[in-house]
Amino acid sequence: MRIIITAIMALALAGCGSKTAVSDSEGALDTQQSFKWKLVTTWPKNYPGLGSAPENFANRVAAMSGGRLTIKVFGAGQLVPAFEVFDAVSQGTAQVGHGASYYWTGKTKAAAFFTSVPFGLNAQEMNGWLHYGGGLELWRELYEPFNLVPFAAGSTGVQMAGWFNREINSMDDIKGLKMRIPGLGGDVITRAGGVSVTMPGGELYTSMQTGVIDATEWVGPYNDLAFGFHQVAKYYYYPGWHEPGPILELIVNKDAYASLPKDLQAIVEGAARAVNQDMLDEYTARNNSALVELVETHGVDVRKLPDDVVAELRRLSAEVVEELAEDTEISRRIAESVKAFQKQAMTYHEISEEAYYRARRQ
Amino acid sequence: MRIIITAIMALALAGCGSKTAVSDSEGALDTQQSFKWKLVTTWPKNYPGLGSAPENFANRVAAMSGGRLTIKVFGAGQLVPAFEVFDAVSQGTAQVGHGASYYWTGKTKAAAFFTSVPFGLNAQEMNGWLHYGGGLELWRELYEPFNLVPFAAGSTGVQMAGWFNREINSMDDIKGLKMRIPGLGGDVITRAGGVSVTMPGGELYTSMQTGVIDATEWVGPYNDLAFGFHQVAKYYYYPGWHEPGPILELIVNKDAYASLPKDLQAIVEGAARAVNQDMLDEYTARNNSALVELVETHGVDVRKLPDDVVAELRRLSAEVVEELAEDTEISRRIAESVKAFQKQAMTYHEISEEAYYRARRQ
Repeated sequence: MRIIITAIMALALAGCGSKTAVSDSEGALDTQQSFKWKLVTTWPKNYPGLGSAPENFANRVAAMSGGRLTIKVFGAGQLVPAFEVFDAVSQGTAQVGHGASYYWTGKTKAAAFFTSVPFGLNAQEMNGWLHYGGGLELWRELYEPFNLVPFAAGSTGVQMAGWFNREINSMDDIKGLKMRIPGLGGDVITRAGGVSVTMPGGELYTSMQTGVIDATEWVGPYNDLAFGFHQVAKYYYYPGWHEPGPILELIVNKDAYASLPKDLQAIVEGAARAVNQDMLDEYTARNNSALVELVETHGVDVRKLPDDVVAELRRLSAEVVEELAEDTEISRRIAESVKAFQKQAMTYHEISEEAYYRARRQ
Repeated sequence: MRIIITAIMALALAGCGSKTAVSDSEGALDTQQSFKWKLVTTWPKNYPGLGSAPENFANRVAAMSGGRLTIKVFGAGQLVPAFEVFDAVSQGTAQVGHGASYYWTGKTKAAAFFTSVPFGLNAQEMNGWLHYGGGLELWRELYEPFNLVPFAAGSTGVQMAGWFNREINSMDDIKGLKMRIPGLGGDVITRAGGVSVTMPGGELYTSMQTGVIDATEWVGPYNDLAFGFHQVAKYYYYPGWHEPGPILELIVNKDAYASLPKDLQAIVEGAARAVNQDMLDEYTARNNSALVELVETHGVDVRKLPDDVVAELRRLSAEVVEELAEDTEISRRIAESVKAFQKQAMTYHEISEEAYYRARRQ
C-alpha cells in the first residue's frame, strides 16, 4: 500500500515545482525553478516557542532562497490533525512537518530516543550527540523506511517536573497520583504506582481545576505561565527529570527533498540548523522572565523533588529505557550510542557546566 | 582618515561582484550576480574547533548560494596577522573576519562583553541574551562606527580554569603566580596579586616546560589535549570561571554586506547562526572524549578550585566588570542589559539546568 502511495506522490511532487526555466546542457543550476511546499505541525498556529519554529523556518527558507522555495505553515488541525503529521509528510500530503519524534512511537518505538528520555541528555548534549556523535545518522536510518528525512529543529531546554495539587514528599505520594505525563515519563509514573494520563494541552487547565487530574507536566515557565496553571495548582516542582532537553524535529518528505536542487537542499538544512538554536535561545530568555513573574507576581510555590524520590524515579527510568532498547536491532544500536555519549558527557559536564553554575551562585 | 579609507573601499567593493546580469525593471532578484569574498581569521588555518567554524561558514554559504557567494578562508598570518583581523575587515581588505570580540578591547573596551566576562553568562545564556535579550542590537551599535556588522559564530562552552604547576589551596597561592591569562580574567589575576601574561598559544608548551610561566589557561580538553599540556603541567583545574561560555564572532564589512542582494544577506545570517550552534556541538562532543583520554590514558590530576578561592575571584571579577561598565555610555548600557539578564538566568538555571545535572548524577 505504501509503495503505491509513494508512486502516486512522486508524480504529484513532480508537478509541484512551477518550472519557468530548465537546466542547460552543462548541468548548471536551474535557479529559476520555484517550489511551493506545505508545512504541517503538531502545534497550534503561532503557539509561543514551539509554534514559532515552523514560522521561522519558513521565513528563513523564503528569504535565503529569494522566494524560490516558499512554505505555507498550517497549524494543528488546519490541514491534518496534530497526530497525523508524520503520516501526512510520509505520504507527501505535505512536504514538511514540525513536531516531536516521541509522538511517533506508535510507528517505531525507538523514535522516543530523538526527543528526550528520562534522565538522559540535555539540549546541549543532545545537539552534540546528534551532530558530532552519530545520533543524526541513526535517526535518518530509523526514519528512512517512512520516506522521511529528519532534522533537529528546536529545544525547550530542561523542562519543569510539573504542576501538582499534592505534595510529593516520598514515593508513596506518587501512588495513585493521576498525572498528565505522556511517553516514557508516563511509563515511569505508571511503574511507580501512579496513573499516567495523556490529554491535549487545551484540556489541562480545566482538568486540573476540576480534579480530573492531580498533576500535569507541560513545558516550563514561558509556556506554563501563558496557560495559567498557577491559578489551578498548588505546587510547581523541579527538576524536569522526564524531559531534560527535548529536541523538536523537522521532517521532510524524502522525494520532495530529493527533487530540490542542491542549493535549496542546503538552504533547508541550514534553516533547520538555525531554527534549532533559535528556539532554545527564545526559551532561555523567556523562561527566565516568566519564572520571575510566576514567583514574584503570582506567588507560585516552587519546590524541589526530594532526593530519594529523584533517585527512585531514576532507577525506574533506567528500566524503562532498557526495555525500549530491547525492542529492535536498531533500538539497541541507538541506545548504545546515546548511552556511551551520556557517560562521557556526565563526566565532563560535572566539572564544566554544572561546576560553573555552582561556582557562580555560591 | 577612516572616512577616506571607507570611500576608497566602497569603490573597491563595487568592483567586487562579477556582474553577469542586471536586475530587471520590476526589481526582481539579480540571481546571476556572483561575489568572491575573503575571510581572515585569528586562528591558524583549520585549527580544531575554533578554526573549523570559518571553513564551515564558507562551505555553507557556497552551498546555499549555489556558488553565487564564494568565500576564501585565510588562516592567521596568511593575509593579515591574527590581531589585524578587525582592522582588515573594517577597512575592507577582507569582507569577513572570524575571531573573538575580546581581542578588540584596544579599539573599544566594551567589546569584551560580547565574548565572555568572568562569572558571567554561559554559552546557552549568551545566545539567549544576544538573540532574545537585546544583546546583538547593542553589539551592532558598538561596532557600527567601525563599519562592521557582528554575528555570533560559535562557542567552546565552559572552559577549564587551566593547567598549573603550583597547587592552588588558597588565595596566597595566586600571589606571584605567573599565568598566561588574557583579558578580564588576567585583570582579576593581577588584582589577586598574580602576574598575568599574554602570549600566543604556540609558545605556551615551552613556556610551561621551562618555567617561564607557572600556569596557563587555554580552552578545554579537546584543544588542550592536542597541545600536550598534560606533559608539562601537574594539575588541571576547574571550573573555568574566567570564560564560562565564550562566543566567537563573525564580523562582516558593512559596505560589503550592504552590497549583497537580500537573499545572500539572509544566507550570510543563516550560515552564521548554523555555525554558531555547530561549533558548540563539536566542542560538547569532543571535550567529553578528550577529558576521558586525559584522565584515563594520561593520568591527569583534575582538581577543583577551592570554594573560598572561587568566592574571592568572584568578588574581584565583579570589581573588574564594574570598572569596564564605567568606561563609556554604551558600556554602561551593555553592562546593565547583561546584568539584568544574568540575574534572571541564574534564578531559572539554578532550578533547571543545574538542578538537572545534579539530579542525574546523584
